[in-house]
Amino acid sequence: MTKRRVSKPIFVGGVKIGGNAEIAVQSMTKTNTANVDATVDQIRLVEEAGCDIIRCAVPDMEAAKAIPRIRARINIPLIADIHFHHHLALESIKGGVDGLRLNPGNIRDPGKVKQVVMAAKERDIPIRIGVNFGSLPPVGGIGKSGGFSRVMDMVNKLPKAGDAVEGEYSVVDHMVATALWEVGLLESLDFDLIKISLKAFDVPTTVEAYRRLSRLVPYPLHLGITEAGTVKSGSIRSAVGLGFLLYEGIGDTIRVSLSGQPREEVVAGYEILKSVNLRQKGTTLIACPSCGRADVDVIKLSNTVDELLQKIDKNVKVAVMGCEVNGPGEAKDADVGIAAGAGRAVIFRKGQKVRVVPESEMLSALMAEVESL
Amino acid sequence: MTKRRVSKPIFVGGVKIGGNAEIAVQSMTKTNTANVDATVDQIRLVEEAGCDIIRCAVPDMEAAKAIPRIRARINIPLIADIHFHHHLALESIKGGVDGLRLNPGNIRDPGKVKQVVMAAKERDIPIRIGVNFGSLPPVGGIGKSGGFSRVMDMVNKLPKAGDAVEGEYSVVDHMVATALWEVGLLESLDFDLIKISLKAFDVPTTVEAYRRLSRLVPYPLHLGITEAGTVKSGSIRSAVGLGFLLYEGIGDTIRVSLSGQPREEVVAGYEILKSVNLRQKGTTLIACPSCGRADVDVIKLSNTVDELLQKIDKNVKVAVMGCEVNGPGEAKDADVGIAAGAGRAVIFRKGQKVRVVPESEMLSALMAEVESL
Repeated sequence: MTKRRVSKPIFVGGVKIGGNAEIAVQSMTKTNTANVDATVDQIRLVEEAGCDIIRCAVPDMEAAKAIPRIRARINIPLIADIHFHHHLALESIKGGVDGLRLNPGNIRDPGKVKQVVMAAKERDIPIRIGVNFGSLPPVGGIGKSGGFSRVMDMVNKLPKAGDAVEGEYSVVDHMVATALWEVGLLESLDFDLIKISLKAFDVPTTVEAYRRLSRLVPYPLHLGITEAGTVKSGSIRSAVGLGFLLYEGIGDTIRVSLSGQPREEVVAGYEILKSVNLRQKGTTLIACPSCGRADVDVIKLSNTVDELLQKIDKNVKVAVMGCEVNGPGEAKDADVGIAAGAGRAVIFRKGQKVRVVPESEMLSALMAEVESL
Repeated sequence: MTKRRVSKPIFVGGVKIGGNAEIAVQSMTKTNTANVDATVDQIRLVEEAGCDIIRCAVPDMEAAKAIPRIRARINIPLIADIHFHHHLALESIKGGVDGLRLNPGNIRDPGKVKQVVMAAKERDIPIRIGVNFGSLPPVGGIGKSGGFSRVMDMVNKLPKAGDAVEGEYSVVDHMVATALWEVGLLESLDFDLIKISLKAFDVPTTVEAYRRLSRLVPYPLHLGITEAGTVKSGSIRSAVGLGFLLYEGIGDTIRVSLSGQPREEVVAGYEILKSVNLRQKGTTLIACPSCGRADVDVIKLSNTVDELLQKIDKNVKVAVMGCEVNGPGEAKDADVGIAAGAGRAVIFRKGQKVRVVPESEMLSALMAEVESL
């Protein structure tokens, strides 16, 4: 793995992002933000799953007014997601929000941008610039005519993802150029509590955009693949994109965008981080895929163990293997494991047999070992 | 993305692996191979999901004898997975198998290895050398004393995954050295229908081993992360590892090892390939993760659409968005999509509005558009 890029750290509430900080896991609520009870309930679930920072959409003043009431009842920093209206940003800051996600270019009026940036600066609140493939300004239109036109037919003139041709102005160029312009707007106001994301659905487009930008600015990067899909397909797509960048040392915080519950986004985020050994959270399951050699239903056993392990908050590797003879050696990396044979199972630690138990007791024996660690 | 490494192609039955061939998706049966009906049933399910090649464990003569009966009833090439016994390899070849997965070093006796290799050569059957972190020979023990000792305490002296220190003999070195030795055994018998895998549970270990080997041999590489986990966690771990290598142009065929049904392995395999635009199979869903701005239950809608799309074998991108105004533009990459607002939805193609339908008809309208493409 490549050594991590060291970015200029910022703080979102008490959570450090960038520098030598561990990679933070974020999610976003899917409730109506103005519905404080429902929003707080959803945030409590992601807190339990290990979410470091939560973001809420602030589409109107009712949502902005809910921010202080939400924040008072949760334990992790809260970010307000603002699209176009500077007064919603100002109200969110007033309400004690810990960070903003906001593209200054979308606010258009320089005077209004300045008001928001000054308010953020006064309270030491960082701003994430969130460039998205789907809402880029028209090519040649960055910063022109008071900002951005969202006229569809102009947006449609953009090169499609994956169309990048060497030497031509590609969608990756345009994403990076847009981000740099947005950064310039904040820097010109002497503001540097900046974090940047560059999301697309297309993985190579996203990867190349982050790679490029990572060499051009000192700020922390928030990684994500946008509109990635359902829990199943979206997790895989996000794992490919985020995993690649993290492996290359790029990325300070992540959000896995899934068409699913926020808790699923957090769980998937940790699985990605665990895969590249960047952050441990709870148990890790090493599970034999099973084959024609297995004497027991390893798939069922693995899934049962997986479910039981969800409740255990220990950094341990647990193996479920389907071969009594080869299992302990094959999973010698595991802190504890079970190798199930016909009618009995070997319990092992770091590849060494601890004891043999009858099949009926194997599950409880394994969990007892895990508990005892 | 890096240009694909061009390997020396081989054929597994009618499926070309390596060279300029598209990346093949493999899986393995989890039934008792001797149970022909159950095994054939499982293979039919993976065929439907687009599996290119299937592998069955051959742990005993009963399984080997089942090979011709299985092969006669399936439509994709069949690979026999052999551990130690050369007579099982010979019987599988006699039974018409299309490929072997077998480490010649495990057979130990050079005379027996020669018999198998000669039989494979006569019928043009390739052999995959499958080096696994969990069953490496002891350090310093490659090729010594008639082959490999599987004595546990010696295996335990191996460096643990992730322990690689620059300048020291690491587990990656040992995996690569073991593969090269196995390759040497086959090459010394003038056999070159070779494919190689180097699997570990640890993603960085696996990635570095493949990276290294890819520069040392001309043969096609079969990618996999071993004992990756359940469908959920294992898919993510595999996506990170396989996605990284594929992005770097490495890999000719893949298997996602999951503690789940073989069909799930194939579906996950295609999701990984789709993420790096290396191979399309069926539809691709672009799904808005939903947020406090959504007026409808986008998560439920996305999952329903996802389920309906499983049955459609067309290479199309379909979007489900939760914002009537921004949705079509944000998902302009999609061939067709739906942007759901309060009580109604916009149907769009390539970012252009086609028509507006009431909420009650949005699902059927979207599917009608997909069907009409």
